[in-house]
Amino acid sequence: MHGSPHALAGDLPAVAADVFARLRERAPRIHCITNSVAQAFTANILLAVGAIPSMTIAPQEVADFAARADALLVNLGTFDAERRAAIEIALEKISEGKRPWILDPVLIDVSQPRAAYARVLAGRKPAAIRLNAAEFLALSGAGAGLEHFQAKREPVRRPETRHAKDALARFAAETASVIGLTGATDIVGDGTRHIEIANGHPLMNAVTAMGCAASALVAACLCVEKDAFAATASALLAFSVAGEIAADMSKGPGSFAVVFIDALHNLDRTMFINRARVS
Amino acid sequence: MHGSPHALAGDLPAVAADVFARLRERAPRIHCITNSVAQAFTANILLAVGAIPSMTIAPQEVADFAARADALLVNLGTFDAERRAAIEIALEKISEGKRPWILDPVLIDVSQPRAAYARVLAGRKPAAIRLNAAEFLALSGAGAGLEHFQAKREPVRRPETRHAKDALARFAAETASVIGLTGATDIVGDGTRHIEIANGHPLMNAVTAMGCAASALVAACLCVEKDAFAATASALLAFSVAGEIAADMSKGPGSFAVVFIDALHNLDRTMFINRARVS
Amino acid sequence: MHGSPHALAGDLPAVAADVFARLRERAPRIHCITNSVAQAFTANILLAVGAIPSMTIAPQEVADFAARADALLVNLGTFDAERRAAIEIALEKISEGKRPWILDPVLIDVSQPRAAYARVLAGRKPAAIRLNAAEFLALSGAGAGLEHFQAKREPVRRPETRHAKDALARFAAETASVIGLTGATDIVGDGTRHIEIANGHPLMNAVTAMGCAASALVAACLCVEKDAFAATASALLAFSVAGEIAADMSKGPGSFAVVFIDALHNLDRTMFINRARVS
Repeated sequence: MHGSPHALAGDLPAVAADVFARLRERAPRIHCITNSVAQAFTANILLAVGAIPSMTIAPQEVADFAARADALLVNLGTFDAERRAAIEIALEKISEGKRPWILDPVLIDVSQPRAAYARVLAGRKPAAIRLNAAEFLALSGAGAGLEHFQAKREPVRRPETRHAKDALARFAAETASVIGLTGATDIVGDGTRHIEIANGHPLMNAVTAMGCAASALVAACLCVEKDAFAATASALLAFSVAGEIAADMSKGPGSFAVVFIDALHNLDRTMFINRARVS
Repeated sequence: MHGSPHALAGDLPAVAADVFARLRERAPRIHCITNSVAQAFTANILLAVGAIPSMTIAPQEVADFAARADALLVNLGTFDAERRAAIEIALEKISEGKRPWILDPVLIDVSQPRAAYARVLAGRKPAAIRLNAAEFLALSGAGAGLEHFQAKREPVRRPETRHAKDALARFAAETASVIGLTGATDIVGDGTRHIEIANGHPLMNAVTAMGCAASALVAACLCVEKDAFAATASALLAFSVAGEIAADMSKGPGSFAVVFIDALHNLDRTMFINRARVS
Repeated sequence: MHGSPHALAGDLPAVAADVFARLRERAPRIHCITNSVAQAFTANILLAVGAIPSMTIAPQEVADFAARADALLVNLGTFDAERRAAIEIALEKISEGKRPWILDPVLIDVSQPRAAYARVLAGRKPAAIRLNAAEFLALSGAGAGLEHFQAKREPVRRPETRHAKDALARFAAETASVIGLTGATDIVGDGTRHIEIANGHPLMNAVTAMGCAASALVAACLCVEKDAFAATASALLAFSVAGEIAADMSKGPGSFAVVFIDALHNLDRTMFINRARVS
């Protein structure tokens, strides 16, 4: 494992390039408990970067899969009794092995039972939590300033991030997790460190399961980079850079989704360095 | 809301162009209870036209999602106990809000339990029902003449539509729903009005979940066009025109499915007007 | 039905071309009990070659679908109680009609309950079993020599196949099934006959559900070719040849998956004959 904690920002493109090189070399196994809409796209995203996905949620099997996984994704989309049982079993196995897991509290702003369970899970030391602004509000109770972190659908503008930054830092410290908040600008914080990624493209909001797949990519990066802050930022930078490259080569959301997978697969050091807009 | 009842036919391309412009502007929320095969493709079709899909079928959550949806899709593919429970909960919420819903009775010609339940649902005032000829026969008991409405796989020929037209009008009147019957020619009827759309391409039958996605698109159009007849016809015209455009640009069903999403995303007034073959 | 048992090898390209011509002509129905990750891709692969997929696993419906299917796919990915019940019902119907079925024991090397159930199923006379080397080891208990049959991800090299060949022949004889073992080289055996297919491309390992879809294609070929050995070899040859063609035309795993479907759809006699590397 590489990577010691550092301020990052200017170094992120080089760090991310290293992380993605290690992914291809080591082929970590990621067990994904995710919603049925996102399963196939998520698996293809993981395969594209060299990771090996598994997806079963069957209670009698999930322990075997989690036991050999290098990281676990817990995604709350399509939240049902079977998935909830699977999450508990998988989390126990992953914790036994002291391996990392990530929480993606999909749409907890809409569903009360989902939000309540997400709060419980956030207290169980995920290495990272990836979410959007509405989900962050529902999870943390934080408020002012976050309305700036709209979906990438909106024209990208410089948010007034003071309040958002503070709220993120507080919640990261409280949960001892890295928070990756994605939107027109992605922000990543671990309580002491903070980074903003201005890359991305509005077409990323016109394809289903993009956020879910971003979380899976964070899980993969957590396997090859011990510093969860660097791992999370690397995954989100890669995602947003691939989104820009794909947008240049596509004619709509259908071709975008296809070319995006190619772009992630083909990301190299030069692309990270030339494209990254990080502060 | 726009749109007062009118005979349509010659006006349909302009009406459909307006409907699709409003979709992009208003971004309606569509809750989809649909089969697992169709979920991802359906979500991507809705996102491509500017609508916002949700897909959960978990009993403890579906009420929250249906409560904030602008329309509901009830698709009977992969008909199971969980989905049946979800349908009942979602329908109650949607009916409370007097918002529209659409029934897609997938393959009820094969499964008796599914057909029986579809007949119950058809009696609960869906704004529209979209189906193919075999499903229409199973749902309505109508017969003669409908054998002409084969899948688009068949060479397009002018059907003898007299009997079909009458059967459709009767069933539409009986259910107080708009019926959208898709095939080599699509026909839409509401009991008094009737329209036929000759657009489309055989490759539309070589991609899974195309019919399911067409129904989801009807649901979206119902949110921005009060006249359910105009909404249904607009959705089916858009679908068939996009199919023709995509066929011109693809080399098989794989690329067709991708380019089809792009084409729907990029549909503009000129394409509706130049391509529509409506009577 | 065509096809009498023969040694194949040199004849396989012509036999496979005939099989695929018959698929397009006869449009057999394949009922697929498969995992949720693979459903949409599998359906699209079947549609691309002219077959008609169905996918329901609901216990109250699966008998109706299996009763009218020409073949059944039993895929153990996402192995749960509902799918297990569906498998039993569907197998009974298929056996009554003396129609063929295929077993795909996905990842039984990881999950003990899945492996135990796969062994039971292998004793119930599937026409074919398609699996990779690790799954073959878990199912048959065979060992030495099989480590050569890595995933296609590895550089293709000539395996020392003596032991593998013997182990396959023994297991095929024991189960009275054709065994299709896929990897860098695919091998097909029925106890007396044996064939090796050296076609394929590493990108086939970078797309989820490729193996699952290959099994579905075997199911389709079993409907139009009475000799299960020829049917299995034809399906796997088509798959690997389409993989090579798609790799030539794609820029990564995203475009590969799309172009692969086009390539399968467009396979013709010349491509089989010019591309096949069979011994």
